[in-house]
Amino acid sequence: MLEKYGHGGDLLTAAELYGGGGGGRDIAFIDFSANINPLGPPPAVLELLQDAAAAVTAYPDPGHRRLKALLAAELGVSTEWITVGNGAAESMALLLLAAAPRRVGIVEPCFSEYRQLAEQFGAEVLTVQGTAEQEYRADAEEIAGLLEQVDLLFLGQPNNPNGVQYALDDLRLLARKAEACGTLLAVDEAFIDFIPEERRQSLLPELAGFRQTVLIRSMTKFFAIPGLRLGFTIAAPELAARMSGKQVTWSVNGLAQLAGEACLRSGRGYAARTRELIAAERELLRAGLRRLGCSVPPGEANFLLAELPEGWTAAAAQEQLGRRGILVRSCAMYPGLAAGHIRVAVKGPADNARLLRELGAVLAGE
Amino acid sequence: MLEKYGHGGDLLTAAELYGGGGGGRDIAFIDFSANINPLGPPPAVLELLQDAAAAVTAYPDPGHRRLKALLAAELGVSTEWITVGNGAAESMALLLLAAAPRRVGIVEPCFSEYRQLAEQFGAEVLTVQGTAEQEYRADAEEIAGLLEQVDLLFLGQPNNPNGVQYALDDLRLLARKAEACGTLLAVDEAFIDFIPEERRQSLLPELAGFRQTVLIRSMTKFFAIPGLRLGFTIAAPELAARMSGKQVTWSVNGLAQLAGEACLRSGRGYAARTRELIAAERELLRAGLRRLGCSVPPGEANFLLAELPEGWTAAAAQEQLGRRGILVRSCAMYPGLAAGHIRVAVKGPADNARLLRELGAVLAGE
Repeated sequence: MLEKYGHGGDLLTAAELYGGGGGGRDIAFIDFSANINPLGPPPAVLELLQDAAAAVTAYPDPGHRRLKALLAAELGVSTEWITVGNGAAESMALLLLAAAPRRVGIVEPCFSEYRQLAEQFGAEVLTVQGTAEQEYRADAEEIAGLLEQVDLLFLGQPNNPNGVQYALDDLRLLARKAEACGTLLAVDEAFIDFIPEERRQSLLPELAGFRQTVLIRSMTKFFAIPGLRLGFTIAAPELAARMSGKQVTWSVNGLAQLAGEACLRSGRGYAARTRELIAAERELLRAGLRRLGCSVPPGEANFLLAELPEGWTAAAAQEQLGRRGILVRSCAMYPGLAAGHIRVAVKGPADNARLLRELGAVLAGE
Repeated sequence: MLEKYGHGGDLLTAAELYGGGGGGRDIAFIDFSANINPLGPPPAVLELLQDAAAAVTAYPDPGHRRLKALLAAELGVSTEWITVGNGAAESMALLLLAAAPRRVGIVEPCFSEYRQLAEQFGAEVLTVQGTAEQEYRADAEEIAGLLEQVDLLFLGQPNNPNGVQYALDDLRLLARKAEACGTLLAVDEAFIDFIPEERRQSLLPELAGFRQTVLIRSMTKFFAIPGLRLGFTIAAPELAARMSGKQVTWSVNGLAQLAGEACLRSGRGYAARTRELIAAERELLRAGLRRLGCSVPPGEANFLLAELPEGWTAAAAQEQLGRRGILVRSCAMYPGLAAGHIRVAVKGPADNARLLRELGAVLAGE
């Protein structure tokens, strides 16, 4: 199975499964199993890498000071609200270490790390289930009920793998509930940068009123630097300090910090171009997948959840696509989804067209 | 204080303290406060960075498979004994998470992360004290006594900041004691690569007989890549699996893994040249420091512990050297050491000569 480690983006396993000479970096897979900006990193990051020796041979700043200052300016918060992590995954782990929850709530289907990390740190996991009728969202009232039973609840905004947002009013209801019952509400905004600002549903501007709410962000996906690892959280200073207090020294490597600074200095042009590309290509990709007989609920992120035509399993399609050099993420293991569910990233026009062509050929039995 | 975050190598704090325009990377400090290979990384790593985009834009291998295979071949163990970490600091944190010790033992003076990590994870810290008469080693029998009282004990081999080794027979005594009382013995070999193989005192070849002993190694110092972060542990497979089970997905970034592979493929020449350089320069540096009136116990690592002449504090010398563009590590905060103790890395001939010249000028009141 391509998801040997529970995620997409694993080129080495792909090479083992689908052939290609045993060297993951040397294979020309087009990887739709990971949701990374198809524009690649901002040019400033690539320039930086040409001169990376200084960042490699010196210790990282353990306080992430310059990056924090840039983030604070960008987000309109003060630096004490920000905790930089070695990827959003470490940010989540720091939250678990700081909060030491006995019970963690999740809304399925969702990013598999919520459950995995909760179990790694010894918490019991309670769930509510999103429904097909609401594009795999759950009822806000039902999530509020779960908040009462747990110490920490993870909610994806937009959620992975279905790519939909909760309405701001639903988020406010949940944040108020979290205040009332002393539960931490962790809103995972790892993909929110892909959503145009006017459509984005985020508690960020109101966060001062919600001391029990943490926003988790990733710089890995939008800035296309998953190999470097970079994420951060925005939370009330007392919680931010507890999270930093659990962080291992130098956890965030020096190159990631410099790349993050370069990304934040790269200006609005790159961000605007990315959002435009993703919005246009997502709709073309969705239309194409539906023409092939897939059921594809609308999504707002840089990926789409698709159910293959009757009779097809994700496993079978994944393997046949893999042999053609195309990686997609099987979602058959997500509770509440079916054996035929896959997730595909939205990439550039040529790659998306190739996916549609190859998937068409697979489904036609060619 | 230069050790704002408890360590050397903090160029940004140095710039804040000593001036230089506010941009850490733009300042020409010669940094003796961090113990990094003065040869710089192997050429293969620098070549790799020229073509780093592939490692940056793809997810890291969460299983560290190629790096593990190379390490296993290099060390003569099988891959199940190896756990790769985001620096040796994460390796230590994983050990604490896996073992969940109530009490942690340390032998002071020692690397400050042992205590800091133990306290971060809620353990009580018990200590024995090294003595000046034994170059700040403690008695093996006394350490064995401490093993009886704790769940996990950290021992530096060679120890930081004094750079001395325990004899192999002492290590065997401790490893047997750890077996007998069910305590974990963590031998921190972060700097052992700097010691010629014929002088190296390591339990590695005998580790199969000591299931309670973990060896912690770093690739950060010897291969001069502290900005990328890379460490690993060697331990019995059942313990290694418990450590991996606590690791956050993708914790070890992709560039660090590729750089580690390049280091291991870089051959014996680089390693031999490094050990030769360090041995020769360390003795010259020690002689020079003693000529300046410092007391400098012999050490075997790539750094030296020095006590400044009567009347000088580490803080005062550190500040005056900092203003001259030279960073040294104050050791005044190490329990058992004096206000006049500093630690200096062994660097190349020109840098070492400059340190001696500037320190001479400082001590002469110029």
